[in-house]
Amino acid sequence: MRQLCKGNVAIIKGAILAGCRSFYGYPITPASEIAEAAALYIPQVGGTFLQAESEVAAINMVYGAAASGARVMTASSGPGVSLMQEGISYIAGAELPCVIVDVVRGGPGLGNIAPEQSDYFAMVKGGGHGSYRNLVLAPASVQEMANLTVLGFELADKYRNPAIVLADGFIGQMMEPLDLEYREVVAPEKPWAVKGTAETHKNLVSSIFLEPDDLENHIHKLEAKYRQAQELEPRWELYNTDDAEILVVGYGITSRILRSAVEAARSQGMRVGLFRPITLWPFPSQALVKAAANVQKVLVVELSTGQMVEDVRLSLNGKVPVEFYGRSGGNVPSVEEIHADLLALLSSVVHSELQGQMMSRR
Amino acid sequence: MRQLCKGNVAIIKGAILAGCRSFYGYPITPASEIAEAAALYIPQVGGTFLQAESEVAAINMVYGAAASGARVMTASSGPGVSLMQEGISYIAGAELPCVIVDVVRGGPGLGNIAPEQSDYFAMVKGGGHGSYRNLVLAPASVQEMANLTVLGFELADKYRNPAIVLADGFIGQMMEPLDLEYREVVAPEKPWAVKGTAETHKNLVSSIFLEPDDLENHIHKLEAKYRQAQELEPRWELYNTDDAEILVVGYGITSRILRSAVEAARSQGMRVGLFRPITLWPFPSQALVKAAANVQKVLVVELSTGQMVEDVRLSLNGKVPVEFYGRSGGNVPSVEEIHADLLALLSSVVHSELQGQMMSRR
Amino acid sequence: MRQLCKGNVAIIKGAILAGCRSFYGYPITPASEIAEAAALYIPQVGGTFLQAESEVAAINMVYGAAASGARVMTASSGPGVSLMQEGISYIAGAELPCVIVDVVRGGPGLGNIAPEQSDYFAMVKGGGHGSYRNLVLAPASVQEMANLTVLGFELADKYRNPAIVLADGFIGQMMEPLDLEYREVVAPEKPWAVKGTAETHKNLVSSIFLEPDDLENHIHKLEAKYRQAQELEPRWELYNTDDAEILVVGYGITSRILRSAVEAARSQGMRVGLFRPITLWPFPSQALVKAAANVQKVLVVELSTGQMVEDVRLSLNGKVPVEFYGRSGGNVPSVEEIHADLLALLSSVVHSELQGQMMSRR
Amino acid sequence: MRQLCKGNVAIIKGAILAGCRSFYGYPITPASEIAEAAALYIPQVGGTFLQAESEVAAINMVYGAAASGARVMTASSGPGVSLMQEGISYIAGAELPCVIVDVVRGGPGLGNIAPEQSDYFAMVKGGGHGSYRNLVLAPASVQEMANLTVLGFELADKYRNPAIVLADGFIGQMMEPLDLEYREVVAPEKPWAVKGTAETHKNLVSSIFLEPDDLENHIHKLEAKYRQAQELEPRWELYNTDDAEILVVGYGITSRILRSAVEAARSQGMRVGLFRPITLWPFPSQALVKAAANVQKVLVVELSTGQMVEDVRLSLNGKVPVEFYGRSGGNVPSVEEIHADLLALLSSVVHSELQGQMMSRR
Repeated sequence: MRQLCKGNVAIIKGAILAGCRSFYGYPITPASEIAEAAALYIPQVGGTFLQAESEVAAINMVYGAAASGARVMTASSGPGVSLMQEGISYIAGAELPCVIVDVVRGGPGLGNIAPEQSDYFAMVKGGGHGSYRNLVLAPASVQEMANLTVLGFELADKYRNPAIVLADGFIGQMMEPLDLEYREVVAPEKPWAVKGTAETHKNLVSSIFLEPDDLENHIHKLEAKYRQAQELEPRWELYNTDDAEILVVGYGITSRILRSAVEAARSQGMRVGLFRPITLWPFPSQALVKAAANVQKVLVVELSTGQMVEDVRLSLNGKVPVEFYGRSGGNVPSVEEIHADLLALLSSVVHSELQGQMMSRR
Repeated sequence: MRQLCKGNVAIIKGAILAGCRSFYGYPITPASEIAEAAALYIPQVGGTFLQAESEVAAINMVYGAAASGARVMTASSGPGVSLMQEGISYIAGAELPCVIVDVVRGGPGLGNIAPEQSDYFAMVKGGGHGSYRNLVLAPASVQEMANLTVLGFELADKYRNPAIVLADGFIGQMMEPLDLEYREVVAPEKPWAVKGTAETHKNLVSSIFLEPDDLENHIHKLEAKYRQAQELEPRWELYNTDDAEILVVGYGITSRILRSAVEAARSQGMRVGLFRPITLWPFPSQALVKAAANVQKVLVVELSTGQMVEDVRLSLNGKVPVEFYGRSGGNVPSVEEIHADLLALLSSVVHSELQGQMMSRR
Repeated sequence: MRQLCKGNVAIIKGAILAGCRSFYGYPITPASEIAEAAALYIPQVGGTFLQAESEVAAINMVYGAAASGARVMTASSGPGVSLMQEGISYIAGAELPCVIVDVVRGGPGLGNIAPEQSDYFAMVKGGGHGSYRNLVLAPASVQEMANLTVLGFELADKYRNPAIVLADGFIGQMMEPLDLEYREVVAPEKPWAVKGTAETHKNLVSSIFLEPDDLENHIHKLEAKYRQAQELEPRWELYNTDDAEILVVGYGITSRILRSAVEAARSQGMRVGLFRPITLWPFPSQALVKAAANVQKVLVVELSTGQMVEDVRLSLNGKVPVEFYGRSGGNVPSVEEIHADLLALLSSVVHSELQGQMMSRR
Repeated sequence: MRQLCKGNVAIIKGAILAGCRSFYGYPITPASEIAEAAALYIPQVGGTFLQAESEVAAINMVYGAAASGARVMTASSGPGVSLMQEGISYIAGAELPCVIVDVVRGGPGLGNIAPEQSDYFAMVKGGGHGSYRNLVLAPASVQEMANLTVLGFELADKYRNPAIVLADGFIGQMMEPLDLEYREVVAPEKPWAVKGTAETHKNLVSSIFLEPDDLENHIHKLEAKYRQAQELEPRWELYNTDDAEILVVGYGITSRILRSAVEAARSQGMRVGLFRPITLWPFPSQALVKAAANVQKVLVVELSTGQMVEDVRLSLNGKVPVEFYGRSGGNVPSVEEIHADLLALLSSVVHSELQGQMMSRR
């Protein structure tokens, strides 16, 4: 079924296709249409939408529903997601699956309601306490808002871990064609769930391990899952990378601007390629190393003062110079800005002036 | 005045010396003695101790008191600090000074009350939303619990930004001699504060900037402060690094174990040195590059599955192989474990087997 | 269908028969089995059970669901119901129907978990702010726990006002036969509800009336409803009142003890009758005046220090001397205690010693 | 010291004279100036003002501070005071002294910010759970706002029980001369307080009594205090009652209108007197019985649909017909309205038409 759909609404359409029947949240611009669509559609399929007292309440309802085996989600933006950090750490520690959508707005603090990508650290590095990781997916289109939400539920169940859909206000607000094809939900059995039934009476969902050895074993178990995810789950997209001298790296709305910039550069004979991470965690490090094997420079572009750029640098580990270009506060780089930056980079490559130098520019 | 003092109590003694007269918090093991000491001592000097309804309430009281120009603090452990992430982002966004102590316990989730260092990401990378940074100080002794708390208040005021004292349960619980010398508090004037007086009536403390250009300018202003701090504030300690072939890197309690391991290794003729970051943000990258200029290997040891190791790798950028050794859940590496690891590393250096390889071991 | 059932569970069975498909609550002894039964049974009929963050959260969820036209309920005990007082006032002010169960425990404060009847004032006089009234029903058997819950939903809808089922821990915990006959739910149309649909888009549920005349008119409208309820809805039970010289008055578990005491007294030739209010508000004043028309004394017995006794005195307005006997803290009067009290009363009647005297004894 | 002062501000001036150095609250119209004055003045005398997260938080801070022996207060209006009902019951159950100001606004629900007297039931009957009573004082002038706040602290300490200052928005907003004379605070010793010192280490402040006999004994102890207060503390004012045929009864702002109405009636030869309760609990029942001994009719006037009228009827117990006249929503009766009502009453007295009839009019 092909339809014109807003990105925030596509999240819920994907969630319903994935069998999600429980949404607990608290509205915040620019994520409010997600709650609104959830309130409209989820009851129509027999599910529950509940606007909680606060984001703290919402994430703990997600915790509870996930413990019962339900496919459950919430959605918010920066301030709300920050309030959920304790709950997210608990959910990861208790090995429960859920999907959390963060439609990033301008920060820090109240900031504004315009799009940014400045929650990367908070979501990818894990802003809660303890040694855990979120699975983080970065949609770049309305179609991916739906598809990566479905994937989020699947990965969350597979790894019994929170999955984050890290979107930005542009993708959330934009209208694009959306193809939804019904497919049967294949959610795994969850014999560990606590369902209030006799069979599940023995089950215990908890994140407490009083003895150091027990907690360390638990953390090793989590780490083994995370290593497996690092092997199996990285997803990325390449565009014109085969012969690239310069590789630009960006995700979400930024990747779409970069694609245009690559096209503009190519039309002028510049050999520029685009690497778009789709999973931010696990970060597609090996794919990036491969894509950057023959490039002279890497340019990371983000709507922040530089967060993913750390993972790019960690991946490339000094093999290629990595530069950064960022905009903030709701401003986005124009194709022309990127083009100018690429010209400067190319010229520097020719003249080898910047070789080996780590430069942070804006 | 020299006295035997517990680390958690030294925090409050330092805070009072620094002129802090306001403490808002909620008790949690292993940080509860901080609240207890605050409740005991701060009223004695005419200040206010308040046990808030929750950590969310506490951090917002800190926000309010900081806005009025007071030197104010809170203290908690992982779960509580996670609940404060929204508030911390607001305080950073509003450019307010405060000190937040995190005595790290085992995580994720409830975990246990034993020491870990697994809140590094949450505190150093910034677990709240938006482009901001915390100033993060890592004490390794009871004396430093006091001294770095004083420094925290000074840096917080200097940069109008939250300062974190990132401690671990060992340092918090241990008894050591503490020298406190009274010195006059030299807190800066705070003409921006909102004091309910006629003169400050025009002042506005806020983190909202509705227009993208305004928010971007505000973020540039924050970034300029952060760059200044990166230039001026890195602090670190070197031990036997001059001729080291292997450099071990650790902070807090770990650095004390590593010091013993270095001594043990040196007694057997192994050329091992220790680099201890005192500021975790700004991370002493240049000092580390310099200290590692002639080493063959770097070994990072943390009470986590590996968090600071990312900043070590970002600093060295592939110039030296960086390995990791971690323990979790309240377990700490013994000197013998470290020694065995160092032997393996040295032998690998000799045989060049691991050259250039990024290995993550436990 | 006849079954053995616990009182607290009968509440939920009645609620489901009445078409209630939404339960929001927070567990508290001795009301917890109500939440437990709701969690078990309400999802089985396609409804929603949600354990809220607090009683404040729960009552506001009830407010929201009631605004959407749902038959919705919550249940708690004293401390929890006290926390709901603001919400109850809002629900009454917004003219919304809902059922709130209070299984009274020992108070004030934490008190204990044993049965009392000391929330009469809080529920009958209206413990929230403003000029409003709750409809209050007092079951005296497991069967009535179900039946009066059904009636509660009907009256709540009829008067668009909160209905309270004011039970005590004895009735809540006791097992008795329960006859449930299915009957079609005849809930009224609710054209005023806000359902998120185009038709209800114009509806507004609110309790705010900024202009004094508007608020006074609104209060007159509420008062007219309350007067209608006072005419139509009083319910009570008489037992051996026809020739009684002494009338005992009690509700809930107390009325069952009083019935035994009446039987014991009658077996000794004493002419004692029982008046049991079933609706506490509207209080069956006229029926009581009629039942007391020829008695010499009225004895009110409550598990409190005397609350309903005020409504008895207000009803009789000095026409008959009203005495009080109360027990507290989970203690209940024995048949023997009541018997002794009745003997004293009768003797005083004979000797006219206490004529016209208002006495408060324990 | 004589000054022109607003009623809400006089509350805080009285509180400071009484030695109150702790205010915890949350602003709400029409009580906000109390918090504002507290924020301004209490820190000036070395005390603590704290705006809490919510009224639930505020009342629990009051609980905590009261347990430590401090003279402590809060202030709010209807919705906020409703949220405090659980806390008030706990404070009464734990036998702690505090002062709570309720500047009544229009209700129920949000209502409006205009004055009413419709929280009488919630404050006088005890809107929280369990068998307890509040001491309730009703100021009728700015001077009394200060004086009765002082008295509130004294009675609260004397009876170890919450004292309520039940004011209305008129008295709160009006400016009148205020005479404040400094007198030494004579607060009683509080050997039961928990001060975090060695001497008070054995003290326990609690409202839990698990065993029924223990709780019943505790309730008897509370009841004995309440009986003592009923004997010693009723306060009231008489105006032209000696030869009155009609007695009007009102408190707060209403009593001032009634005084004018009495004067107007007297100027026309009508024998009307005024009874003004100053303590609403203990209600001055015996004084009222005495004042009404020779009257034909009693007219109760309230800014509600009739709440104190119940206590008037309970006091008079049918000896005199009691009528009611109420206004709501911020409207107040004019002297002319009262005059017309009095004329009707007098004419009915003459013609004995209404003899013995309980009439509720508006």
